[in-house]
Amino acid sequence: MEAPANQRAVRRHNLGVVLRHVVEQGPRSRATIAQETGLNKSTVSSLVTELIEIGVLVERGTHRTGLVGRPGLVVDVAGSGAAGIGLEVNVDSLTVCATDLARNERHRGLDVADNRDRDPGEVMGRLAALAREALDALRAQGVAPLGITVALPGLVDTAAGVLLLAPNLRWEDLPVARMLMQRIDAPGLDVVIDNEANLAALAELHEGAGRGLQHFVHVSGEVGIGAGVVLDGRLFRGAHGFGGEFGHLTVDPGGTRCACGSHGCLETCAGLEAVLAAAGESGLSDASAADAVAKLAGRAQEGDPATVGALGDAGHWLGIGLACVANLLDPEAIVLGGFLASLAPHLAPAAEAELDARMLGSGHGRPDVLASPLGSAAASRGGAALALHRVLENPGVLGAPEVVT
Amino acid sequence: MEAPANQRAVRRHNLGVVLRHVVEQGPRSRATIAQETGLNKSTVSSLVTELIEIGVLVERGTHRTGLVGRPGLVVDVAGSGAAGIGLEVNVDSLTVCATDLARNERHRGLDVADNRDRDPGEVMGRLAALAREALDALRAQGVAPLGITVALPGLVDTAAGVLLLAPNLRWEDLPVARMLMQRIDAPGLDVVIDNEANLAALAELHEGAGRGLQHFVHVSGEVGIGAGVVLDGRLFRGAHGFGGEFGHLTVDPGGTRCACGSHGCLETCAGLEAVLAAAGESGLSDASAADAVAKLAGRAQEGDPATVGALGDAGHWLGIGLACVANLLDPEAIVLGGFLASLAPHLAPAAEAELDARMLGSGHGRPDVLASPLGSAAASRGGAALALHRVLENPGVLGAPEVVT
Repeated sequence: MEAPANQRAVRRHNLGVVLRHVVEQGPRSRATIAQETGLNKSTVSSLVTELIEIGVLVERGTHRTGLVGRPGLVVDVAGSGAAGIGLEVNVDSLTVCATDLARNERHRGLDVADNRDRDPGEVMGRLAALAREALDALRAQGVAPLGITVALPGLVDTAAGVLLLAPNLRWEDLPVARMLMQRIDAPGLDVVIDNEANLAALAELHEGAGRGLQHFVHVSGEVGIGAGVVLDGRLFRGAHGFGGEFGHLTVDPGGTRCACGSHGCLETCAGLEAVLAAAGESGLSDASAADAVAKLAGRAQEGDPATVGALGDAGHWLGIGLACVANLLDPEAIVLGGFLASLAPHLAPAAEAELDARMLGSGHGRPDVLASPLGSAAASRGGAALALHRVLENPGVLGAPEVVT
Repeated sequence: MEAPANQRAVRRHNLGVVLRHVVEQGPRSRATIAQETGLNKSTVSSLVTELIEIGVLVERGTHRTGLVGRPGLVVDVAGSGAAGIGLEVNVDSLTVCATDLARNERHRGLDVADNRDRDPGEVMGRLAALAREALDALRAQGVAPLGITVALPGLVDTAAGVLLLAPNLRWEDLPVARMLMQRIDAPGLDVVIDNEANLAALAELHEGAGRGLQHFVHVSGEVGIGAGVVLDGRLFRGAHGFGGEFGHLTVDPGGTRCACGSHGCLETCAGLEAVLAAAGESGLSDASAADAVAKLAGRAQEGDPATVGALGDAGHWLGIGLACVANLLDPEAIVLGGFLASLAPHLAPAAEAELDARMLGSGHGRPDVLASPLGSAAASRGGAALALHRVLENPGVLGAPEVVT
């Protein structure tokens, strides 16, 4: 006989409670889980059994912890249970990454090519190929793929699955989710698209420089500059999901025309191509962004005056933009990601000087400027984590038979 | 015999639930309150009786609503029950306002004088005199004064009651709450200080242009320009409570030196003194801000070229600042308050043109630019409302005997 609807809903909810508890707090006994979650012991036992059957938890013996008595059994996350896939479309590369519930990276792939002068359909074909490689790799490892999140450098209508505007790719009104699903051809696998800076900020919050912070802004520098705004421990998206367009803050009102059509946007002063041009380097048509950034870092290290000057100028403009953020939102930290993280030692001093000068009350407390430890992997890892988040919210999606206590 | 602690806590909580329900939803019967809050009828009856004894609710006959049967009794907010007091320190004036639970204004007072070249102790003495007038007026009306909130144009440490920094007043590290309490000499009355733009935004949220909005930024223009940031229906204050310093956004990096020490802050381009100077008017030493604004509005209406040009320029700079806010936070609306509201017809077109040009994706949706209906009263009304909020959260503070069902 089927249990009443509200009883099934409560059980589904509690499955999520137990799974998230183990993911967040680490391996522990059923008794400890019961004590810490406030659920009763027999309910926890039955929920754990179901989560083991689904394949997201495993049971194993624990080490002696110094207490008298025989070692007990603990429940831990099954890394092999399920994985999320994150894809990223960048101006000069495509990336894929798959991470499991234990946050282990199960697969990573890269396809370097300038995407700006290509047909979006062709780029989607290459992105689908990366996704299929990840799916094959997961299947070979016996890990269930749960879903895909695609990180895009522009304004995204997440609900509709449409990329509205990506100035640096010169793409507009593109139904990316549908285009990709058609090309991957894996029925049942959901594909969600999102802004790359938002996903990078989520990764920072879960496993990077933002862990334990309530309010921070993650500034993600590639050819474009974006940001993810985390307030009260959650990603803030705004009314239409357009928040965090930090690269298009006007810092120099009479300045250079930007790819977006405006003038003097921060990314025209501190984006990667602007920095390369100011340092006398050739642009990204001749080298990958990673190579170009490595070269800049090397020259700055050697004290090359043009490079040091270009990075100082970029730090100055970046600091003017960061002071706007600090005056408006008073965050605990600014996390620099992407190429801004690699070049942080050469950018941060000038940026911090502007923050000190331009944030009202900086003497009473101003945001720390931190470099992301996640580097260029942040957005794709954030995408994979978002796909996994679905399981943590509702483990029932994995499709195990429903057991009712 | 005393009821157990948790039972008393539940009752205190439910007193607040019933009171807030009537304040927010309007007059209604005990039965309707029970139905809408989910509390049982006898509990509601007992809670309503206590709230009537405390003096915050009253009972009266209802109008016939067209239904058959005799008219019943409804419970309504007792305007005479309690009032909050809001004080505001501005560069050229001091204001007081007292509002009751039914949002009626019970008292208003004003003291016009340039506060910039005065000893803070003297200004506090005049502010205390305004507060005592309000307390006397409330007592004469039989209304209990609940608390005072002081709106200040600068960075405030609310917990410590200290004004950290107010560039336009040239005040720093001033224990305003303590100074004022000593001078009012009304033991038991609590005094809380807060940023004026935050309090104005709260007033906008409760009774102004922000009603029903989730995300908006209230930009409050006086000599200085501040902002209150409302996200997810709540005031966002930031890590140190320094959020919303919109007037100190850099819009013209190489521009004029600001009172805060930085250069090219928005308020150097679009603050009231900047607009007066650009329009060829004399500054605020010769006229009150209200008179100066009225004169500007009149000249703009007549089409005086210098005034129209000055307001257009101010709108342009304001729009550059608003585009920063829009790119970062994607709010539903920008609410212009203070003198920006009075001059909105002459400022908004240029500001909206900059928003359209400089907000990425403005074609897909950008914030509306609205004028506040509350005018210069917003901050003091917000302060009075915040004092009242304490009663709505915990009606027991009014000190009635505790009745336990």
